[in-house]
Amino acid sequence: MQTSQKIAIVGSGLVGTLLAIYLKKIGHTVHVFDRSPDIRTVEFSGRSINLVMSNRGWKTLKDIGLDDEIKKIGIPVDKRGIHLQDGSYATQYYGNEGEAIYSLSRGILNRRMIDLAEDAGVEFFFSHNVWDISLSTATLHIGETERGEWTDLQYDKVFGADGAFSRVRHRMQRQSMFDYSQEFLEIGYKELHIPANPDGSHKIDKNSLHIWPRGEFMLMALANLNGSFTCTLFMPFKGQNSFESLKDEKILLDFFAEFFPDTETVIPDLVRDFFKNPTSYLVMMKCFPWTYSDKVALIGDSSHAIVPFYGHGMNSGFEDITVLSEMIAQYGDDWETIFVEYQKSRKPNADAIAELSYRNFMEMSSKTADEKFLLQKKIEKWFSAKHPDKWMPLYSRVTFSLQPYAEALAIGDYQNKIMEEILAIENIDEIWDTEPIEQAILELLK
Amino acid sequence: MQTSQKIAIVGSGLVGTLLAIYLKKIGHTVHVFDRSPDIRTVEFSGRSINLVMSNRGWKTLKDIGLDDEIKKIGIPVDKRGIHLQDGSYATQYYGNEGEAIYSLSRGILNRRMIDLAEDAGVEFFFSHNVWDISLSTATLHIGETERGEWTDLQYDKVFGADGAFSRVRHRMQRQSMFDYSQEFLEIGYKELHIPANPDGSHKIDKNSLHIWPRGEFMLMALANLNGSFTCTLFMPFKGQNSFESLKDEKILLDFFAEFFPDTETVIPDLVRDFFKNPTSYLVMMKCFPWTYSDKVALIGDSSHAIVPFYGHGMNSGFEDITVLSEMIAQYGDDWETIFVEYQKSRKPNADAIAELSYRNFMEMSSKTADEKFLLQKKIEKWFSAKHPDKWMPLYSRVTFSLQPYAEALAIGDYQNKIMEEILAIENIDEIWDTEPIEQAILELLK
Repeated sequence: MQTSQKIAIVGSGLVGTLLAIYLKKIGHTVHVFDRSPDIRTVEFSGRSINLVMSNRGWKTLKDIGLDDEIKKIGIPVDKRGIHLQDGSYATQYYGNEGEAIYSLSRGILNRRMIDLAEDAGVEFFFSHNVWDISLSTATLHIGETERGEWTDLQYDKVFGADGAFSRVRHRMQRQSMFDYSQEFLEIGYKELHIPANPDGSHKIDKNSLHIWPRGEFMLMALANLNGSFTCTLFMPFKGQNSFESLKDEKILLDFFAEFFPDTETVIPDLVRDFFKNPTSYLVMMKCFPWTYSDKVALIGDSSHAIVPFYGHGMNSGFEDITVLSEMIAQYGDDWETIFVEYQKSRKPNADAIAELSYRNFMEMSSKTADEKFLLQKKIEKWFSAKHPDKWMPLYSRVTFSLQPYAEALAIGDYQNKIMEEILAIENIDEIWDTEPIEQAILELLK
Repeated sequence: MQTSQKIAIVGSGLVGTLLAIYLKKIGHTVHVFDRSPDIRTVEFSGRSINLVMSNRGWKTLKDIGLDDEIKKIGIPVDKRGIHLQDGSYATQYYGNEGEAIYSLSRGILNRRMIDLAEDAGVEFFFSHNVWDISLSTATLHIGETERGEWTDLQYDKVFGADGAFSRVRHRMQRQSMFDYSQEFLEIGYKELHIPANPDGSHKIDKNSLHIWPRGEFMLMALANLNGSFTCTLFMPFKGQNSFESLKDEKILLDFFAEFFPDTETVIPDLVRDFFKNPTSYLVMMKCFPWTYSDKVALIGDSSHAIVPFYGHGMNSGFEDITVLSEMIAQYGDDWETIFVEYQKSRKPNADAIAELSYRNFMEMSSKTADEKFLLQKKIEKWFSAKHPDKWMPLYSRVTFSLQPYAEALAIGDYQNKIMEEILAIENIDEIWDTEPIEQAILELLK
């Protein structure tokens, strides 16, 4: 049993709020600060990508006793639905029978979790700007404006769950020996919308993550509970087919008619949404260390902001909480060790999921429409069914297992090398499910 | 001829001051701000590494008409002097007869350049803290303290020459699409001192860059005009032989006796200097973009802070000025194009010298004592003398030529691959200067 601490969390997003519930449940006093108003009182912004919860996220929720509650607002998604440019449609199952990720609306999930946190006794301070923090005393500096009067609030611990542009990290960054990088992608995204049918049903299969893979760009769609889909168009900011090039209504409509012909009937407000919704940036952010003495720790996007192409931003942030809870269980009141071991355990895994996520844009936007890639997936699935102890495909490792990301990445690379050799075999597309191929893989695995 | 601009430069270091002289000479009004007091009025800090000026730096100075003036305070260095642990000593010439780099004391050089800038009509504002900058209006926000009253000073252009921890860049970093990274090395450094002989002469050869290469760590020494040497000990912060491990006088003296036996007579104040002088950090910093509209540009360390192992921090910063001056000559009053073309030209070259500098620690601390490396150097020199049009060693490209760093790096890597093949030839140490080897290299170059 730990000594009760007075803990401030900066950021009332998904990770901050779940961390708050966890810390409150184990006996601490928890205050959550956010510069934004209470998300329960405002409209959503039209710039969100739907979330997918996979096994890592569920594990954290289950440990805190919230998984049943959250599953009510999720929609299981067990496959990709691939929309090719010629109008044909194919499905690719993510895993084995019964394995699925869950589509969740960010806004609905966040609102629900803040409700649950308040029920648990967490106190929220919305519309409070934390401008700076004194690391050595865990003191927040709060005020209306950055240059105005500030109030100082001292805590025992401060967690920075304040996202990719974290103020808490910003202060840590000005220490010596603090490694930091931020890198923006040349690709941005825009939210679009498939409304529900008049009877509230979904216009396309709700249990698929829909992708329109077009190489340099892609459209995707994930179902919402109310029958609608949140769509996301990912494409370069500049160049031939880019946000810059889609500059008027006619060009936009021609572009969609050419590349996404089957969306015409399901995205009725394309023009309005496209020109109204902002074009958002994608940033990768890495840093180290994540903690300061026994006073301050970063968690979630503030310590490892990744791109969304593996659907693991939230999952990796929730897994941070799981690992933190393991360290708390192990080291009790020794918070310095808790923090050191937490960052030591998480950093390589955060780097690995960052890499996997970055690579996955290529997989989603190009490879899902590529014959060779589909054959590799088939072979892996076939071999894995025969030898589940010897082969788990990378996607399953990342999404349906709890294996550390860094291990999943390393084994995935190893498996890819084996598959390269297998795919180079003559006539592989005809003999892929034969005994000689099975033997060849077994041999390469030795 | 450009329209005269009112220009602020933040930072009175080497690059800021030289840029000021250049801009003043072509007709602009130039104000230089620095948070530090006038370096001409304070003692040096005991944390400097001596600088080496090579051809790129001299080219910039010559174009601005200052090379003769600065050469007076430099000492030509045409070779490495390698002090092995067994007490033996060897020299490695850097280039051909007459090619040399120049050792300069940072403090003396900076003081001299501020004098020259004032002579040219540049105005300096020392002990002025620039806390923030409004990018779109080129306005500096200056005040005694960060949270106190600020004065706003508006200019036509602002240059951030304020080093690795630039405040100007700090503001740019908070824009979307601004890529940034800072990475601290596990190796730090400490300044030590070889005093002059009583008659003012140097205790060891002044025309050599002295290195005591010991693998994980090394000592180096560069001559000063007054007969002394500035020495720099590079070593890990932590571990077996580290700054942390050298924790008392006895351990320090034993360590130096074991690894640097020939320094005992020349570094008399080792104990005092070691425990008095700070252990300094080494940081690599990259970012992009370097400019904001036609208003703000970064230059020198603020846009590309590198490690000191190639001796090109100042040289690459001065080369920034050369490239900027070329763009100014080409584009006249079109500052937006000047800034865009300046960053486009410099960014890949800054990345290349960052990479070359990082690699060079290994070269200095390990390879200079390695037989195979020395043989490679000999072969390259021999072949280059026979075929100067076909081969220039990498060090010479970087240091004695004005070839863009990125090209030098690429060609250097290509040459290294050729040398790997040559060094793998049987008995290469006996037959390295024979015709078959010459032919083999010519063949590989095809």
